[in-house]
Amino acid sequence: MKTNKQIILVSRPKGMPTIENYRFVETTLPEVNESQVRVRTLYLSVDPYMRGRMNEGKSYVPPFKLEEVIAGGAVGQVEESRHENFKAGDFVSGQWGWQQYTVTDGAKLFKIDPDRAPLTAALGVLGMTGLTAYFGLLDIGKPQSGETVVVSGAAGAVGMVVGQIAKIYGCRVVGIAGSDEKISYLKAELGFDECVNYKKSGLPKALADACPKGVDIYFDNVGGSVSDVVMQLINKGARIPLCGQISLYNQEKPDTGPRVQNQLLINSALMQGFIVGNYAPRFQEGVSQLAQWLAAKQIRYTETVIAGFENTPKAFLGLFSGENTGKALVKVSDPK
Amino acid sequence: MKTNKQIILVSRPKGMPTIENYRFVETTLPEVNESQVRVRTLYLSVDPYMRGRMNEGKSYVPPFKLEEVIAGGAVGQVEESRHENFKAGDFVSGQWGWQQYTVTDGAKLFKIDPDRAPLTAALGVLGMTGLTAYFGLLDIGKPQSGETVVVSGAAGAVGMVVGQIAKIYGCRVVGIAGSDEKISYLKAELGFDECVNYKKSGLPKALADACPKGVDIYFDNVGGSVSDVVMQLINKGARIPLCGQISLYNQEKPDTGPRVQNQLLINSALMQGFIVGNYAPRFQEGVSQLAQWLAAKQIRYTETVIAGFENTPKAFLGLFSGENTGKALVKVSDPK
Repeated sequence: MKTNKQIILVSRPKGMPTIENYRFVETTLPEVNESQVRVRTLYLSVDPYMRGRMNEGKSYVPPFKLEEVIAGGAVGQVEESRHENFKAGDFVSGQWGWQQYTVTDGAKLFKIDPDRAPLTAALGVLGMTGLTAYFGLLDIGKPQSGETVVVSGAAGAVGMVVGQIAKIYGCRVVGIAGSDEKISYLKAELGFDECVNYKKSGLPKALADACPKGVDIYFDNVGGSVSDVVMQLINKGARIPLCGQISLYNQEKPDTGPRVQNQLLINSALMQGFIVGNYAPRFQEGVSQLAQWLAAKQIRYTETVIAGFENTPKAFLGLFSGENTGKALVKVSDPK
Repeated sequence: MKTNKQIILVSRPKGMPTIENYRFVETTLPEVNESQVRVRTLYLSVDPYMRGRMNEGKSYVPPFKLEEVIAGGAVGQVEESRHENFKAGDFVSGQWGWQQYTVTDGAKLFKIDPDRAPLTAALGVLGMTGLTAYFGLLDIGKPQSGETVVVSGAAGAVGMVVGQIAKIYGCRVVGIAGSDEKISYLKAELGFDECVNYKKSGLPKALADACPKGVDIYFDNVGGSVSDVVMQLINKGARIPLCGQISLYNQEKPDTGPRVQNQLLINSALMQGFIVGNYAPRFQEGVSQLAQWLAAKQIRYTETVIAGFENTPKAFLGLFSGENTGKALVKVSDPK
């Protein structure tokens, strides 16, 4: 009998989550029945949107239930299969979340071709975060050659893909990030034209200097006062895809600031919230295009991989202090 | 030699304009030269957007210049013509603004057919405000039968057309207005399903009660705290055309309040500013459709007409205290 370590949500965080909101449990894995597979987790994904699901109220998606395993993206390897579509050794991705194994009927597993890209790409550039960048920028932002694109959370998994796609489309790309190390990486390795560090004083001037022709697209991952600054620089006809508001997810006081309506009005500008799930019918298109850019080295990426299942909550909390550059992952076990 | 009374902007208002910001002057009309016409003003339009043009800074359109006649929509009658396209007695509309006459080359005059609708309709339901309602609601709002449409400034020239078009499209229409008299008119005469008076306490509950299925489209003419309330009720996929922010135009302190981004994000909702000028290539389509609805009595309208050129500033200021129901106009002279 195999044991399965799992992480359960035991209480809803107020503000920043703490380790007390989670409980590690050990359960016994069920047998693999007819038409089922057992998958061993290789990598877990930790993503800012999961914070919203830890609350009671409405967010992008329904809240997590208390006393259940925390759901989220994962990559694994099939250990045992009684399902005709899978065999032992296959690599798969799915949403089984923060546990070492899953026994499932396979309906929500997707096979990964390990020769196309590293396995972890299925959780990042060729997975949810890459698709989020792809659809948010292209479908809402509609970048045109010569336009200026500002992306906040630029060194995050979504932001760094947004910036690189915008470069492919011929835009001037300005990133907002929280450390000089991240900024060096974005400029030297990923081709961002300019970056500003929002933790330094003088953001309004630094950003205005970086955007001498104003801002045509603002891809917003962070919200709050950083976004207030960007909104002062938008051009007529600007588009603002709202992808995330990470600066607010752990904030307990109401989110108040300058209202954006007048800026949108006088600039005939568009602001639109979205989640990647809205584009599910077009995922295949997005993955194909991203894989092509990746193969052509027009898109590069980096990851922050934390080893050890027991470090999953720590990896998750690190998202909110900006400890990751690129996709944040937890390595749970080695492929065989 | 004819004299021409004009109203000049002499200083930029701080907050609510006063009569001191304007000066009445008497000038001598020039002769009508070859290819020119002289038009006598019948009606002047006063519109909230004109307040933005009295400021120095960027608004929808360039600011008015100091010491010049205040530009704005007007309807008039040709008194003398040396232009091949116009003859004495023709009715025309244009942007010659707050003066009793204009002598012009006719390039920016539009002939009005007095048999199609009352002359003043060219400034309202078949003019700028009707077109604003038409394009903002249909192009950005995209109403679907059965959806709930909330319109603020519902008893204004734009709002009352928005509500009636939404009814034609099969929507539940909820208006927000500032007096019980306006509300009675909107419900009894224009077919609004429900209306709430924002000047009474308990707006959040009243609006929630009026929108049991939430809000799919919020056509915003007012901004500020009224809009904050509506934003709490939006549904997934909501659309928010931003047409005006009249509650702010005379406000001197910064416009702060709850940020809308998170509401837009968790609802995959769209907020878009626009001005009617964006749709200039489609004006003919809009006027034709509006005229058809008007003839079929599917759209009705009312006007608030103030008599006397000297009352133009007063009529304009009345917009900000909600003294008008429907289009606010100044009657300057009688047609002949």
